[in-house]
Amino acid sequence: MSLAVFGSIGLDDVETPSGSVHGAVGGSAVYFSLAASLYTHVQVAGNVGNDFPPEAWDTLRHRGADLSGLKLFRDRPNFRWRGRYEGDMNEAITLETQLNVLEVEPEVPASYLDARLVFLANMGPDVQAKLRARFPKAMVWADTMNLWIRIQREALEALLPQLDGLVLNDGEARMLTGEHNLIAAGARLQELGPKIVVVKKGEHGAFLFAPDGRFSLPAYPTTRVVDPTGAGDSFAGGLLGSLAASGSHDFPALRRAMVDGTVCASLTVEEFSTRGLEAADPAELARRSAELRAFVDVG
Amino acid sequence: MSLAVFGSIGLDDVETPSGSVHGAVGGSAVYFSLAASLYTHVQVAGNVGNDFPPEAWDTLRHRGADLSGLKLFRDRPNFRWRGRYEGDMNEAITLETQLNVLEVEPEVPASYLDARLVFLANMGPDVQAKLRARFPKAMVWADTMNLWIRIQREALEALLPQLDGLVLNDGEARMLTGEHNLIAAGARLQELGPKIVVVKKGEHGAFLFAPDGRFSLPAYPTTRVVDPTGAGDSFAGGLLGSLAASGSHDFPALRRAMVDGTVCASLTVEEFSTRGLEAADPAELARRSAELRAFVDVG
Repeated sequence: MSLAVFGSIGLDDVETPSGSVHGAVGGSAVYFSLAASLYTHVQVAGNVGNDFPPEAWDTLRHRGADLSGLKLFRDRPNFRWRGRYEGDMNEAITLETQLNVLEVEPEVPASYLDARLVFLANMGPDVQAKLRARFPKAMVWADTMNLWIRIQREALEALLPQLDGLVLNDGEARMLTGEHNLIAAGARLQELGPKIVVVKKGEHGAFLFAPDGRFSLPAYPTTRVVDPTGAGDSFAGGLLGSLAASGSHDFPALRRAMVDGTVCASLTVEEFSTRGLEAADPAELARRSAELRAFVDVG
Repeated sequence: MSLAVFGSIGLDDVETPSGSVHGAVGGSAVYFSLAASLYTHVQVAGNVGNDFPPEAWDTLRHRGADLSGLKLFRDRPNFRWRGRYEGDMNEAITLETQLNVLEVEPEVPASYLDARLVFLANMGPDVQAKLRARFPKAMVWADTMNLWIRIQREALEALLPQLDGLVLNDGEARMLTGEHNLIAAGARLQELGPKIVVVKKGEHGAFLFAPDGRFSLPAYPTTRVVDPTGAGDSFAGGLLGSLAASGSHDFPALRRAMVDGTVCASLTVEEFSTRGLEAADPAELARRSAELRAFVDVG
């Protein structure tokens, strides 16, 4: 099952209690596809600025990703994000955002139109709805964020019934549904449209709400959290990469995909930028997957 | 394996977003033993004031609990706690505490001295150490709280190597170890003494750190949270009741006990005071246990 992703290509300045990076490779589409490419063939789409380093694509190219949907703007700088994590690192403090090439809506290359599985990373729900309409036969998943719930709630609520899957974090699930209880919020989100909902809870793991049941998984038990930037997109990339590889959205496939997404998120948080995902190999994925499965095994 | 508990007998005034109760039965020893009595024979010890309703013991008596360790003070009122939960109800706001009979140290009845498993509910670590010394051959577990970490840290650190098991919440684990990461905090607590550590995370479930491995379990997926008072003591009661029933502290027994503790906590939070634990029967325990196991089954 071919997988396409639409999202941001970023250059990040990040400061955490463990250190800092400047102009580091990031962005939702980059984290997502680096994770997904560990499991499947991924088609990457997004706008690239003239200051984005071309060698940043080496790993994805080496993993066989289709990069033809990257649109290079020779006259504009790249999207930039500057942020900081403090204390428990549960939430990023955004210090500055320069949209630059992100001001232009993403294009859909004709060669991506056959994708059977599509991920629309965090972007305005109006833009997500246009992209969704281009893939009438695909399973389409999306992410969102508190900003859109605040300023584009109607567009987001109109999008939800058109989605097959929704990935969002706990605060967003509460904000969108008005339900504090996450079990209730997940059920409510399924009523609003997507039959499959994944609520990410950071260090507390994630919940899956699917037609055939609910599933809870903790975060991978790492003691090394260096930089949470991109963890959510890495999770989504592992999740959808795994689903694409299995060619199924049934409950067993979804639960396996939750494990794979969780493993990818752990690779990301243990290093700055995309280093963890770039260094990963199948043996490391298998080791972490086995450790996570043992961690939740009731016996 | 016989199980004895030392803790408070309480009369609580509690206010939550769902309503309020006045002079409701509570206290750590009461919640603990109501939960434990669903799995095993429990011996209850604690100081009781002259205004505590005698009929509050009916359920425990009916379940065969040994109440000979309850010491009635005819000249003093009962321990009282007044508190409120707001918003996400993750933490109680204490409005008033009247120690009354709790000013007197608990007595150990001779008939309890053969207990093979002992739970020392939250109380000063100096008192816990004295009680621990009375049961040289028993497996002894204890709970603690932020107050003691603040004002009796040395006594608490001296107690830890004498404990077989420690149950505490996430904030206390962080405060006691200085580790924000709970996986690291759990490992550090094991180094400080107890070979078995359980870190409770409220709505996020609990972690077990045991000699043979770590285990993560989410909270039971309830959408009904009426009153969190006593949830932690109910969890500990189910946990130790289960361990007493199985007669083992091996890893499989500990993981089963985590499930049983989690089920007991869910019974408590769904009703005010002890109503949930009092109404529970084996069929309800089995139903919740199966649902929780399905919720975490990776497949």
